[in-house]
Amino acid sequence: MPYEFKITRRVEFSDTDMAGIVHYSNFFRYMETAEHAFFRSLGYSIVTKQVDPPVGWPRVRAECEYKSPLRFEDEVEVHMLVAEKKSKALTYLFRFHKLNANPRVEVATGRLTVVCVTHAQGKMSATTIPKSLADQIEIAPKELLA
Amino acid sequence: MPYEFKITRRVEFSDTDMAGIVHYSNFFRYMETAEHAFFRSLGYSIVTKQVDPPVGWPRVRAECEYKSPLRFEDEVEVHMLVAEKKSKALTYLFRFHKLNANPRVEVATGRLTVVCVTHAQGKMSATTIPKSLADQIEIAPKELLA
Amino acid sequence: MPYEFKITRRVEFSDTDMAGIVHYSNFFRYMETAEHAFFRSLGYSIVTKQVDPPVGWPRVRAECEYKSPLRFEDEVEVHMLVAEKKSKALTYLFRFHKLNANPRVEVATGRLTVVCVTHAQGKMSATTIPKSLADQIEIAPKELLA
Amino acid sequence: MPYEFKITRRVEFSDTDMAGIVHYSNFFRYMETAEHAFFRSLGYSIVTKQVDPPVGWPRVRAECEYKSPLRFEDEVEVHMLVAEKKSKALTYLFRFHKLNANPRVEVATGRLTVVCVTHAQGKMSATTIPKSLADQIEIAPKELLA
Repeated sequence: MPYEFKITRRVEFSDTDMAGIVHYSNFFRYMETAEHAFFRSLGYSIVTKQVDPPVGWPRVRAECEYKSPLRFEDEVEVHMLVAEKKSKALTYLFRFHKLNANPRVEVATGRLTVVCVTHAQGKMSATTIPKSLADQIEIAPKELLA
Repeated sequence: MPYEFKITRRVEFSDTDMAGIVHYSNFFRYMETAEHAFFRSLGYSIVTKQVDPPVGWPRVRAECEYKSPLRFEDEVEVHMLVAEKKSKALTYLFRFHKLNANPRVEVATGRLTVVCVTHAQGKMSATTIPKSLADQIEIAPKELLA
Repeated sequence: MPYEFKITRRVEFSDTDMAGIVHYSNFFRYMETAEHAFFRSLGYSIVTKQVDPPVGWPRVRAECEYKSPLRFEDEVEVHMLVAEKKSKALTYLFRFHKLNANPRVEVATGRLTVVCVTHAQGKMSATTIPKSLADQIEIAPKELLA
Repeated sequence: MPYEFKITRRVEFSDTDMAGIVHYSNFFRYMETAEHAFFRSLGYSIVTKQVDPPVGWPRVRAECEYKSPLRFEDEVEVHMLVAEKKSKALTYLFRFHKLNANPRVEVATGRLTVVCVTHAQGKMSATTIPKSLADQIEIAPKELLA
Protein backbone atom coordinates (compact mmCIF):
# COMPACT_ATOMS: atom_id res chain seq x y z
CA MET A 1 0.00 0.00 0.00
CA PRO A 2 1.36 3.45 -0.80
CA TYR A 3 0.64 4.69 2.72
CA GLU A 4 2.70 2.27 4.81
CA PHE A 5 5.74 0.08 4.96
CA LYS A 6 7.12 -2.45 7.42
CA ILE A 7 10.69 -3.49 8.04
CA THR A 8 12.06 -5.97 10.53
CA ARG A 9 15.50 -5.68 12.03
CA ARG A 10 17.47 -7.40 14.72
CA VAL A 11 18.98 -5.26 17.47
CA GLU A 12 22.75 -5.09 17.08
CA PHE A 13 25.26 -5.03 19.91
CA SER A 14 26.41 -1.54 18.97
CA ASP A 15 22.81 -0.28 19.23
CA THR A 16 22.83 -0.96 22.97
CA ASP A 17 24.21 1.15 25.80
CA MET A 18 25.51 0.38 29.27
CA ALA A 19 21.93 0.15 30.56
CA GLY A 20 21.70 -2.99 28.45
CA ILE A 21 19.03 -1.58 26.15
CA VAL A 22 18.86 0.12 22.76
CA HIS A 23 20.03 3.70 23.15
CA TYR A 24 17.06 6.01 22.73
CA SER A 25 18.67 7.91 19.86
CA ASN A 26 18.77 4.74 17.77
CA PHE A 27 14.99 4.58 17.48
CA PHE A 28 15.35 7.61 15.20
CA ARG A 29 17.83 5.71 13.01
CA TYR A 30 15.36 2.83 12.86
CA MET A 31 12.52 5.19 11.83
CA GLU A 32 14.58 6.62 9.01
CA THR A 33 15.52 3.21 7.70
CA ALA A 34 11.82 2.33 7.40
CA GLU A 35 11.16 5.61 5.59
CA HIS A 36 13.96 4.94 3.11
CA ALA A 37 12.72 1.39 2.47
CA PHE A 38 9.25 2.88 1.83
CA PHE A 39 10.75 5.19 -0.79
CA ARG A 40 12.54 2.27 -2.42
CA SER A 41 9.24 0.37 -2.48
CA LEU A 42 7.89 3.24 -4.62
CA GLY A 43 10.86 3.00 -6.98
CA TYR A 44 12.71 5.98 -5.51
CA SER A 45 15.79 6.56 -3.43
CA ILE A 46 15.41 9.17 -0.72
CA VAL A 47 18.62 10.61 -2.17
CA THR A 48 17.38 10.89 -5.65
CA LYS A 49 18.35 12.35 -8.94
CA GLN A 50 15.29 10.68 -10.45
CA VAL A 51 13.47 14.00 -10.30
CA ASP A 52 14.69 17.25 -11.81
CA PRO A 53 15.86 19.23 -9.94
CA PRO A 54 16.99 16.70 -7.28
CA VAL A 55 15.21 17.00 -3.95
CA GLY A 56 16.24 16.24 -0.40
CA TRP A 57 14.20 15.54 2.72
CA PRO A 58 15.58 17.22 5.84
CA ARG A 59 13.85 16.40 9.08
CA VAL A 60 12.05 19.29 10.75
CA ARG A 61 10.45 17.50 13.70
CA ALA A 62 11.01 14.14 15.36
CA GLU A 63 9.55 12.55 18.43
CA CYS A 64 9.44 9.17 20.10
CA GLU A 65 7.59 7.66 23.05
CA TYR A 66 9.30 4.74 24.74
CA LYS A 67 7.11 2.14 26.42
CA SER A 68 9.32 -0.87 26.88
CA PRO A 69 13.02 -1.43 26.22
CA LEU A 70 14.58 -3.29 23.31
CA ARG A 71 17.58 -5.50 23.98
CA PHE A 72 20.38 -7.15 22.01
CA GLU A 73 19.14 -9.61 19.39
CA ASP A 74 15.49 -8.62 19.82
CA GLU A 75 13.60 -8.62 16.55
CA VAL A 76 11.76 -5.38 16.01
CA GLU A 77 9.19 -4.50 13.40
CA VAL A 78 9.09 -0.86 12.41
CA HIS A 79 5.73 -0.03 10.85
CA MET A 80 5.68 3.31 9.04
CA LEU A 81 2.44 5.02 8.11
CA VAL A 82 1.89 8.27 6.22
CA ALA A 83 0.03 10.44 8.74
CA GLU A 84 0.00 13.77 6.90
CA LYS A 85 0.71 14.87 3.35
CA LYS A 86 1.09 18.53 2.50
CA SER A 87 2.33 20.08 -0.71
CA LYS A 88 5.88 20.39 0.63
CA ALA A 89 5.99 18.10 3.66
CA LEU A 90 5.17 14.61 4.89
CA THR A 91 4.56 13.35 8.41
CA TYR A 92 5.02 9.71 9.26
CA LEU A 93 3.82 7.71 12.22
CA PHE A 94 5.89 4.76 13.41
CA ARG A 95 4.96 1.80 15.56
CA PHE A 96 7.72 -0.38 16.98
CA HIS A 97 6.84 -3.94 17.92
CA LYS A 98 9.09 -6.46 19.56
CA LEU A 99 8.37 -9.66 17.66
CA ASN A 100 10.17 -12.13 19.92
CA ALA A 101 7.51 -11.79 22.60
CA ASN A 102 4.27 -13.70 22.85
CA PRO A 103 2.11 -11.84 22.15
CA ARG A 104 4.24 -9.31 20.33
CA VAL A 105 4.42 -6.04 22.21
CA GLU A 106 4.42 -2.39 21.12
CA VAL A 107 7.62 -0.94 22.57
CA ALA A 108 7.55 2.56 21.10
CA THR A 109 5.78 4.95 18.77
CA GLY A 110 7.36 7.73 16.78
CA ARG A 111 6.51 10.63 14.53
CA LEU A 112 8.65 12.35 11.96
CA THR A 113 8.00 15.38 9.78
CA VAL A 114 10.18 15.87 6.74
CA VAL A 115 10.15 18.65 4.20
CA CYS A 116 10.96 18.47 0.51
CA VAL A 117 13.79 20.83 -0.46
CA THR A 118 15.94 21.76 -3.39
CA HIS A 119 19.45 23.12 -3.15
CA ALA A 120 20.62 26.14 -5.04
CA GLN A 121 23.89 27.94 -4.40
CA GLY A 122 24.42 26.04 -1.19
CA LYS A 123 21.04 27.06 0.21
CA MET A 124 18.11 24.75 0.85
CA SER A 125 14.59 25.92 0.12
CA ALA A 126 11.29 24.11 0.56
CA THR A 127 9.70 22.99 -2.66
CA THR A 128 6.57 21.18 -3.81
CA ILE A 129 6.93 17.39 -3.69
CA PRO A 130 7.52 16.27 -7.31
CA LYS A 131 4.21 15.12 -8.82
CA SER A 132 5.57 11.74 -9.94
CA LEU A 133 6.39 10.96 -6.33
CA ALA A 134 3.49 12.74 -4.65
CA ASP A 135 1.01 10.85 -6.81
CA GLN A 136 2.23 7.61 -5.33
CA ILE A 137 1.92 8.58 -1.69
CA GLU A 138 -1.39 8.39 0.17
CA ILE A 139 -2.42 9.24 3.70
CA ALA A 140 -3.11 6.12 5.75
CA PRO A 141 -6.73 5.40 6.70
CA LYS A 142 -7.79 7.08 9.94
CA GLU A 143 -8.33 3.83 11.78
CA LEU A 144 -4.69 2.87 11.24
CA LEU A 145 -3.48 6.20 12.64
CA ALA A 146 -5.63 6.15 15.76
CA MET B 1 21.69 27.47 38.95
CA PRO B 2 20.04 24.15 39.86
CA TYR B 3 17.54 24.48 36.98
CA GLU B 4 19.85 24.75 33.98
CA PHE B 5 23.18 23.81 32.49
CA LYS B 6 25.08 24.71 29.37
CA ILE B 7 27.65 22.73 27.46
CA THR B 8 29.51 23.61 24.29
CA ARG B 9 30.71 21.05 21.83
CA ARG B 10 32.24 21.04 18.40
CA VAL B 11 30.55 18.98 15.69
CA GLU B 12 32.65 15.94 14.87
CA PHE B 13 33.07 14.43 11.42
CA SER B 14 31.35 11.22 12.48
CA ASP B 15 28.31 13.24 13.60
CA THR B 16 27.61 14.23 10.00
CA ASP B 17 25.83 12.31 7.26
CA MET B 18 26.01 12.35 3.48
CA ALA B 19 23.80 15.44 3.40
CA GLY B 20 26.78 17.25 4.94
CA ILE B 21 24.95 18.04 8.17
CA VAL B 22 24.66 16.58 11.67
CA HIS B 23 22.43 13.51 11.50
CA TYR B 24 19.14 14.27 13.22
CA SER B 25 19.52 11.40 15.68
CA ASN B 26 22.68 12.97 17.09
CA PHE B 27 20.81 15.92 18.57
CA PHE B 28 19.43 13.39 21.06
CA ARG B 29 22.96 12.32 21.97
CA TYR B 30 23.86 15.98 22.47
CA MET B 31 20.81 16.52 24.73
CA GLU B 32 21.76 13.61 26.91
CA THR B 33 25.32 14.79 27.28
CA ALA B 34 24.04 18.12 28.61
CA GLU B 35 21.75 16.30 31.05
CA HIS B 36 24.62 14.19 32.35
CA ALA B 37 26.85 17.22 32.78
CA PHE B 38 24.00 18.86 34.73
CA PHE B 39 23.91 15.86 37.05
CA ARG B 40 27.67 16.04 37.52
CA SER B 41 27.32 19.74 38.35
CA LEU B 42 25.07 18.66 41.24
CA GLY B 43 27.66 16.16 42.44
CA TYR B 44 25.93 13.12 40.95
CA SER B 45 26.51 10.75 38.11
CA ILE B 46 23.43 9.84 36.12
CA VAL B 47 24.59 6.26 36.67
CA THR B 48 24.82 6.49 40.36
CA LYS B 49 25.30 4.30 43.35
CA GLN B 50 25.37 7.45 45.47
CA VAL B 51 21.77 6.79 46.46
CA ASP B 52 20.45 3.58 47.99
CA PRO B 53 18.97 1.76 46.17
CA PRO B 54 20.67 2.88 42.94
CA VAL B 55 18.37 4.58 40.46
CA GLY B 56 18.38 4.85 36.69
CA TRP B 57 16.76 7.34 34.33
CA PRO B 58 15.23 5.74 31.24
CA ARG B 59 13.84 8.10 28.65
CA VAL B 60 10.07 7.93 28.12
CA ARG B 61 9.60 10.73 25.62
CA ALA B 62 11.95 12.66 23.36
CA GLU B 63 11.37 15.27 20.71
CA CYS B 64 13.35 17.73 18.65
CA GLU B 65 12.52 20.54 16.25
CA TYR B 66 15.16 21.34 13.66
CA LYS B 67 15.39 24.90 12.39
CA SER B 68 18.77 25.15 10.75
CA PRO B 69 21.47 22.55 10.07
CA LEU B 70 24.70 22.07 11.99
CA ARG B 71 27.85 21.25 10.05
CA PHE B 72 31.31 19.82 10.71
CA GLU B 73 33.35 21.89 13.17
CA ASP B 74 30.43 24.12 14.10
CA GLU B 75 30.43 25.05 17.76
CA VAL B 76 27.11 24.36 19.37
CA GLU B 77 25.86 25.36 22.78
CA VAL B 78 23.33 23.01 24.33
CA HIS B 79 21.35 24.82 27.00
CA MET B 80 19.35 22.48 29.23
CA LEU B 81 16.53 23.75 31.43
CA VAL B 82 14.35 21.84 33.89
CA ALA B 83 10.84 22.33 32.50
CA GLU B 84 8.88 19.99 34.76
CA LYS B 85 9.59 18.18 38.01
CA LYS B 86 7.28 15.48 39.24
CA SER B 87 7.82 13.06 42.10
CA LYS B 88 9.11 10.35 39.75
CA ALA B 89 9.93 12.19 36.52
CA LEU B 90 11.75 15.18 35.08
CA THR B 91 11.22 16.99 31.79
CA TYR B 92 14.01 19.04 30.27
CA LEU B 93 13.91 21.68 27.58
CA PHE B 94 16.94 22.13 25.35
CA ARG B 95 17.98 25.02 23.15
CA PHE B 96 20.73 24.49 20.60
CA HIS B 97 22.67 27.52 19.43
CA LYS B 98 25.30 27.64 16.76
CA LEU B 99 27.97 29.88 18.24
CA ASN B 100 30.13 30.40 15.16
CA ALA B 101 27.53 32.65 13.58
CA ASN B 102 27.10 36.35 14.09
CA PRO B 103 24.72 36.74 15.77
CA ARG B 104 24.53 33.23 17.17
CA VAL B 105 21.51 31.38 15.87
CA GLU B 106 19.09 28.92 17.47
CA VAL B 107 19.29 25.81 15.32
CA ALA B 108 17.05 23.44 17.26
CA THR B 109 14.98 22.93 20.39
CA GLY B 110 14.37 19.68 22.18
CA ARG B 111 12.41 18.17 25.02
CA LEU B 112 13.13 15.05 27.00
CA THR B 113 11.14 13.31 29.72
CA VAL B 114 12.96 10.86 31.95
CA VAL B 115 11.64 8.74 34.77
CA CYS B 116 13.43 7.63 37.91
CA VAL B 117 13.52 3.85 38.27
CA THR B 118 14.96 1.15 40.45
CA HIS B 119 15.80 -2.33 39.30
CA ALA B 120 14.74 -5.43 41.18
CA GLN B 121 14.93 -8.96 39.81
CA GLY B 122 15.65 -7.66 36.34
CA LYS B 123 12.54 -5.47 36.28
CA MET B 124 12.49 -1.69 36.27
CA SER B 125 9.87 0.17 38.28
CA ALA B 126 9.27 3.88 38.64
CA THR B 127 10.32 5.29 41.99
CA THR B 128 10.34 8.62 43.79
CA ILE B 129 13.39 10.73 42.96
CA PRO B 130 15.76 10.39 45.95
CA LYS B 131 15.30 13.39 48.25
CA SER B 132 18.99 14.29 48.32
CA LEU B 133 18.87 14.73 44.57
CA ALA B 134 15.35 16.11 44.22
CA ASP B 135 16.12 18.84 46.73
CA GLN B 136 18.81 20.16 44.43
CA ILE B 137 16.70 20.39 41.30
CA GLU B 138 14.41 23.34 40.61
CA ILE B 139 12.04 24.14 37.80
CA ALA B 140 13.36 26.94 35.61
CA PRO B 141 11.62 30.33 35.78
CA LYS B 142 8.70 30.59 33.36
CA GLU B 143 10.27 33.32 31.30
CA LEU B 144 13.21 31.04 30.47
CA LEU B 145 10.89 28.28 29.32
CA ALA B 146 8.70 30.43 27.09
CA MET C 1 30.41 -24.54 7.75
CA PRO C 2 31.65 -23.94 11.29
CA TYR C 3 34.53 -21.76 10.07
CA GLU C 4 32.69 -19.02 8.21
CA PHE C 5 29.53 -17.00 7.94
CA LYS C 6 28.15 -14.46 5.50
CA ILE C 7 25.70 -11.66 6.06
CA THR C 8 24.38 -9.10 3.63
CA ARG C 9 23.33 -5.65 4.67
CA ARG C 10 22.27 -2.47 2.96
CA VAL C 11 24.15 0.72 3.83
CA GLU C 12 21.92 3.02 5.87
CA PHE C 13 21.85 6.79 5.63
CA SER C 14 23.14 7.16 9.19
CA ASP C 15 26.16 5.00 8.32
CA THR C 16 27.42 7.68 5.94
CA ASP C 17 29.39 10.83 6.67
CA MET C 18 29.73 14.18 4.95
CA ALA C 19 32.20 12.66 2.48
CA GLY C 20 29.20 10.74 1.15
CA ILE C 21 30.63 7.35 2.12
CA VAL C 22 30.31 4.89 4.98
CA HIS C 23 32.28 6.23 7.94
CA TYR C 24 35.34 4.09 8.47
CA SER C 25 34.39 3.23 12.05
CA ASN C 26 31.21 1.54 10.84
CA PHE C 27 33.12 -1.26 9.13
CA PHE C 28 33.92 -2.44 12.66
CA ARG C 29 30.21 -2.48 13.52
CA TYR C 30 29.57 -4.50 10.38
CA MET C 31 32.31 -7.00 11.31
CA GLU C 32 30.84 -7.54 14.72
CA THR C 33 27.36 -8.11 13.34
CA ALA C 34 28.72 -10.92 11.15
CA GLU C 35 30.49 -12.44 14.15
CA HIS C 36 27.31 -12.39 16.22
CA ALA C 37 25.30 -13.97 13.38
CA PHE C 38 28.00 -16.67 13.20
CA PHE C 39 27.51 -17.39 16.89
CA ARG C 40 23.74 -17.57 16.42
CA SER C 41 24.29 -20.01 13.55
CA LEU C 42 26.02 -22.26 16.09
CA GLY C 43 23.08 -21.98 18.47
CA TYR C 44 24.75 -19.43 20.76
CA SER C 45 24.35 -15.78 21.54
CA ILE C 46 27.61 -13.87 21.89
CA VAL C 47 26.08 -12.63 25.15
CA THR C 48 25.38 -16.00 26.55
CA LYS C 49 24.32 -17.62 29.74
CA GLN C 50 24.22 -20.92 27.87
CA VAL C 51 27.58 -21.80 29.37
CA ASP C 52 28.40 -21.81 33.06
CA PRO C 53 29.96 -19.51 34.08
CA PRO C 54 28.82 -17.00 31.43
CA VAL C 55 31.58 -15.75 29.14
CA GLY C 56 32.11 -12.53 27.26
CA TRP C 57 34.22 -11.70 24.24
CA PRO C 58 36.03 -8.36 24.51
CA ARG C 59 37.93 -7.25 21.46
CA VAL C 60 41.72 -7.04 21.89
CA ARG C 61 42.75 -6.13 18.36
CA ALA C 62 40.91 -4.79 15.34
CA GLU C 63 42.07 -3.68 11.94
CA CYS C 64 40.60 -2.78 8.59
CA GLU C 65 41.98 -2.00 5.14
CA TYR C 66 39.80 0.16 2.94
CA LYS C 67 40.05 -0.29 -0.81
CA SER C 68 36.96 1.32 -2.22
CA PRO C 69 34.17 3.33 -0.58
CA LEU C 70 30.68 2.13 0.25
CA ARG C 71 27.77 4.49 -0.30
CA PHE C 72 24.15 4.84 0.78
CA GLU C 73 21.97 1.90 -0.25
CA ASP C 74 24.91 -0.20 -1.43
CA GLU C 75 24.48 -3.87 -0.64
CA VAL C 76 27.49 -5.26 1.15
CA GLU C 77 28.34 -8.85 1.92
CA VAL C 78 30.43 -9.37 5.03
CA HIS C 79 32.18 -12.73 4.87
CA MET C 80 33.64 -13.82 8.20
CA LEU C 81 36.22 -16.59 8.42
CA VAL C 82 37.87 -18.09 11.49
CA ALA C 83 41.56 -17.37 10.92
CA GLU C 84 43.01 -18.48 14.27
CA LYS C 85 41.71 -20.50 17.19
CA LYS C 86 43.59 -20.56 20.45
CA SER C 87 42.48 -21.95 23.79
CA LYS C 88 41.30 -18.52 24.98
CA ALA C 89 41.06 -16.42 21.82
CA LEU C 90 39.71 -16.35 18.28
CA THR C 91 40.84 -14.30 15.30
CA TYR C 92 38.47 -13.64 12.43
CA LEU C 93 39.16 -12.45 8.92
CA PHE C 94 36.52 -10.40 7.13
CA ARG C 95 36.04 -9.68 3.45
CA PHE C 96 33.63 -6.95 2.42
CA HIS C 97 32.14 -7.12 -1.05
CA LYS C 98 29.91 -4.58 -2.68
CA LEU C 99 27.25 -6.69 -4.38
CA ASN C 100 25.59 -4.02 -6.48
CA ALA C 101 28.55 -3.85 -8.82
CA ASN C 102 29.22 -6.01 -11.84
CA PRO C 103 31.37 -7.87 -11.14
CA ARG C 104 31.07 -7.54 -7.38
CA VAL C 105 34.06 -5.79 -5.86
CA GLU C 106 36.04 -6.31 -2.66
CA VAL C 107 35.87 -2.98 -0.87
CA ALA C 108 37.63 -3.83 2.40
CA THR C 109 39.18 -6.54 4.49
CA GLY C 110 39.27 -6.72 8.26
CA ARG C 111 40.70 -8.71 11.11
CA LEU C 112 39.46 -9.00 14.65
CA THR C 113 40.90 -10.81 17.67
CA VAL C 114 38.58 -11.51 20.57
CA VAL C 115 39.33 -13.16 23.88
CA CYS C 116 37.04 -15.30 25.99
CA VAL C 117 36.59 -13.91 29.50
CA THR C 118 34.65 -14.49 32.66
CA HIS C 119 33.69 -11.83 35.14
CA ALA C 120 34.24 -12.19 38.84
CA GLN C 121 33.92 -9.37 41.35
CA GLY C 122 33.77 -6.81 38.58
CA LYS C 123 37.04 -8.01 37.05
CA MET C 124 37.41 -9.72 33.69
CA SER C 125 39.88 -12.53 33.28
CA ALA C 126 40.72 -14.61 30.21
CA THR C 127 39.37 -18.12 30.29
CA THR C 128 39.39 -21.22 28.13
CA ILE C 129 36.66 -21.19 25.47
CA PRO C 130 33.90 -23.51 26.76
CA LYS C 131 34.28 -26.94 25.16
CA SER C 132 30.70 -27.09 23.91
CA LEU C 133 31.36 -23.97 21.88
CA ALA C 134 35.00 -24.58 20.98
CA ASP C 135 34.12 -27.98 19.56
CA GLN C 136 31.89 -26.31 17.00
CA ILE C 137 34.42 -23.80 15.72
CA GLU C 138 37.03 -24.72 13.12
CA ILE C 139 39.81 -22.79 11.47
CA ALA C 140 39.03 -22.00 7.85
CA PRO C 141 41.03 -23.83 5.16
CA LYS C 142 44.25 -22.07 4.26
CA GLU C 143 43.22 -21.32 0.71
CA LEU C 144 40.25 -19.29 1.97
CA LEU C 145 42.47 -17.23 4.24
CA ALA C 146 45.09 -16.42 1.62
CA MET D 1 54.82 20.63 17.99
CA PRO D 2 53.92 19.92 14.36
CA TYR D 3 54.24 16.17 14.90
CA GLU D 4 51.71 15.55 17.69
CA PHE D 5 48.51 16.69 19.28
CA LYS D 6 46.59 15.78 22.42
CA ILE D 7 42.90 15.99 23.12
CA THR D 8 40.99 15.02 26.22
CA ARG D 9 37.43 13.86 26.16
CA ARG D 10 34.96 12.40 28.61
CA VAL D 11 33.28 9.12 27.70
CA GLU D 12 29.62 9.73 26.87
CA PHE D 13 26.76 7.39 27.72
CA SER D 14 26.04 6.74 24.05
CA ASP D 15 29.66 5.64 23.55
CA THR D 16 29.08 2.63 25.78
CA ASP D 17 27.52 -0.72 24.94
CA MET D 18 25.69 -3.35 26.98
CA ALA D 19 29.02 -4.70 28.25
CA GLY D 20 29.27 -1.41 30.15
CA ILE D 21 32.34 -0.24 28.24
CA VAL D 22 33.13 1.99 25.29
CA HIS D 23 32.21 0.12 22.10
CA TYR D 24 35.40 -0.80 20.27
CA SER D 25 34.37 1.03 17.11
CA ASN D 26 34.29 4.33 19.00
CA PHE D 27 38.05 4.35 19.52
CA PHE D 28 38.25 5.03 15.79
CA ARG D 29 35.94 8.01 16.17
CA TYR D 30 38.16 9.26 18.99
CA MET D 31 41.28 8.87 16.84
CA GLU D 32 39.77 10.89 14.04
CA THR D 33 38.74 13.67 16.36
CA ALA D 34 42.35 14.03 17.52
CA GLU D 35 43.53 14.10 13.90
CA HIS D 36 41.06 16.84 13.02
CA ALA D 37 42.07 18.89 16.05
CA PHE D 38 45.70 18.50 14.94
CA PHE D 39 44.77 19.91 11.54
CA ARG D 40 42.97 22.82 13.16
CA SER D 41 46.08 23.46 15.28
CA LEU D 42 47.95 23.96 11.98
CA GLY D 43 45.32 26.40 10.76
CA TYR D 44 43.55 23.92 8.49
CA SER D 45 40.29 22.07 8.46
CA ILE D 46 40.51 18.45 7.39
CA VAL D 47 37.66 19.37 5.06
CA THR D 48 39.39 22.22 3.45
CA LYS D 49 39.01 24.57 0.56
CA GLN D 50 42.09 26.39 1.80
CA VAL D 51 44.15 24.63 -0.83
CA ASP D 52 43.42 24.59 -4.56
CA PRO D 53 42.19 22.12 -5.65
CA PRO D 54 40.49 21.01 -2.41
CA VAL D 55 41.81 17.76 -0.95
CA GLY D 56 40.24 15.05 1.14
CA TRP D 57 41.76 12.41 3.41
CA PRO D 58 40.11 9.01 3.10
CA ARG D 59 41.32 6.35 5.51
CA VAL D 60 43.11 3.41 3.90
CA ARG D 61 44.12 1.48 7.00
CA ALA D 62 43.05 1.56 10.64
CA GLU D 63 43.94 -0.57 13.60
CA CYS D 64 43.55 -0.53 17.35
CA GLU D 65 44.82 -2.62 20.24
CA TYR D 66 42.67 -2.66 23.34
CA LYS D 67 44.37 -3.17 26.68
CA SER D 68 41.89 -2.04 29.26
CA PRO D 69 38.26 -0.89 28.96
CA LEU D 70 36.99 2.67 29.13
CA ARG D 71 33.75 3.34 30.97
CA PHE D 72 31.11 6.06 31.19
CA GLU D 73 32.49 9.41 32.39
CA ASP D 74 36.11 8.26 32.19
CA GLU D 75 38.43 11.00 31.01
CA VAL D 76 40.58 9.85 28.16
CA GLU D 77 43.56 11.56 26.58
CA VAL D 78 44.10 10.78 22.93
CA HIS D 79 47.70 11.50 21.97
CA MET D 80 48.26 11.61 18.21
CA LEU D 81 51.74 11.39 16.72
CA VAL D 82 52.81 11.55 13.08
CA ALA D 83 54.50 8.18 12.51
CA GLU D 84 55.05 8.31 8.76
CA LYS D 85 54.94 11.01 6.13
CA LYS D 86 54.97 10.13 2.47
CA SER D 87 54.33 12.40 -0.50
CA LYS D 88 50.67 11.37 -0.67
CA ALA D 89 49.95 9.73 2.68
CA LEU D 90 50.30 10.14 6.43
CA THR D 91 50.31 7.53 9.17
CA TYR D 92 49.43 8.46 12.72
CA LEU D 93 50.05 6.63 15.95
CA PHE D 94 47.59 7.10 18.81
CA ARG D 95 47.97 6.43 22.52
CA PHE D 96 44.86 6.41 24.68
CA HIS D 97 45.30 7.11 28.37
CA LYS D 98 42.64 6.96 31.04
CA LEU D 99 43.35 10.04 33.14
CA ASN D 100 41.05 9.31 36.08
CA ALA D 101 43.33 6.55 37.31
CA ASN D 102 46.33 6.91 39.56
CA PRO D 103 48.71 6.53 37.89
CA ARG D 104 47.08 7.16 34.55
CA VAL D 105 46.92 4.03 32.47
CA GLU D 106 47.37 3.36 28.75
CA VAL D 107 44.15 1.69 27.67
CA ALA D 108 44.71 1.40 23.92
CA THR D 109 46.97 2.25 21.02
CA GLY D 110 45.93 2.87 17.45
CA ARG D 111 47.32 3.49 14.01
CA LEU D 112 45.69 5.18 11.07
CA THR D 113 46.91 5.70 7.50
CA VAL D 114 45.21 8.36 5.43
CA VAL D 115 45.82 9.35 1.85
CA CYS D 116 45.50 12.78 0.27
CA VAL D 117 43.05 12.82 -2.62
CA THR D 118 41.41 15.19 -5.04
CA HIS D 119 38.02 14.67 -6.59
CA ALA D 120 37.38 15.09 -10.29
CA GLN D 121 34.22 13.99 -12.07
CA GLY D 122 33.10 12.04 -9.03
CA LYS D 123 36.31 10.03 -8.88
CA MET D 124 38.92 10.25 -6.13
CA SER D 125 42.60 10.06 -7.01
CA ALA D 126 45.64 10.20 -4.73
CA THR D 127 47.56 13.45 -4.94
CA THR D 128 50.66 15.02 -3.42
CA ILE D 129 49.98 16.65 -0.05
CA PRO D 130 49.79 20.42 -0.73
CA LYS D 131 53.15 21.99 0.10
CA SER D 132 51.70 24.63 2.41
CA LEU D 133 50.34 21.86 4.57
CA ALA D 134 53.11 19.30 4.13
CA ASP D 135 55.70 21.86 5.20
CA GLN D 136 54.01 22.13 8.57
CA ILE D 137 53.91 18.43 9.35
CA GLU D 138 56.90 16.58 10.79
CA ILE D 139 57.50 12.98 11.71
CA ALA D 140 57.66 12.51 15.47
CA PRO D 141 61.03 11.67 17.03
CA LYS D 142 61.75 7.94 17.11
CA GLU D 143 61.76 7.70 20.86
CA LEU D 144 58.15 8.94 20.99
CA LEU D 145 57.05 6.32 18.48
CA ALA D 146 58.72 3.36 20.17
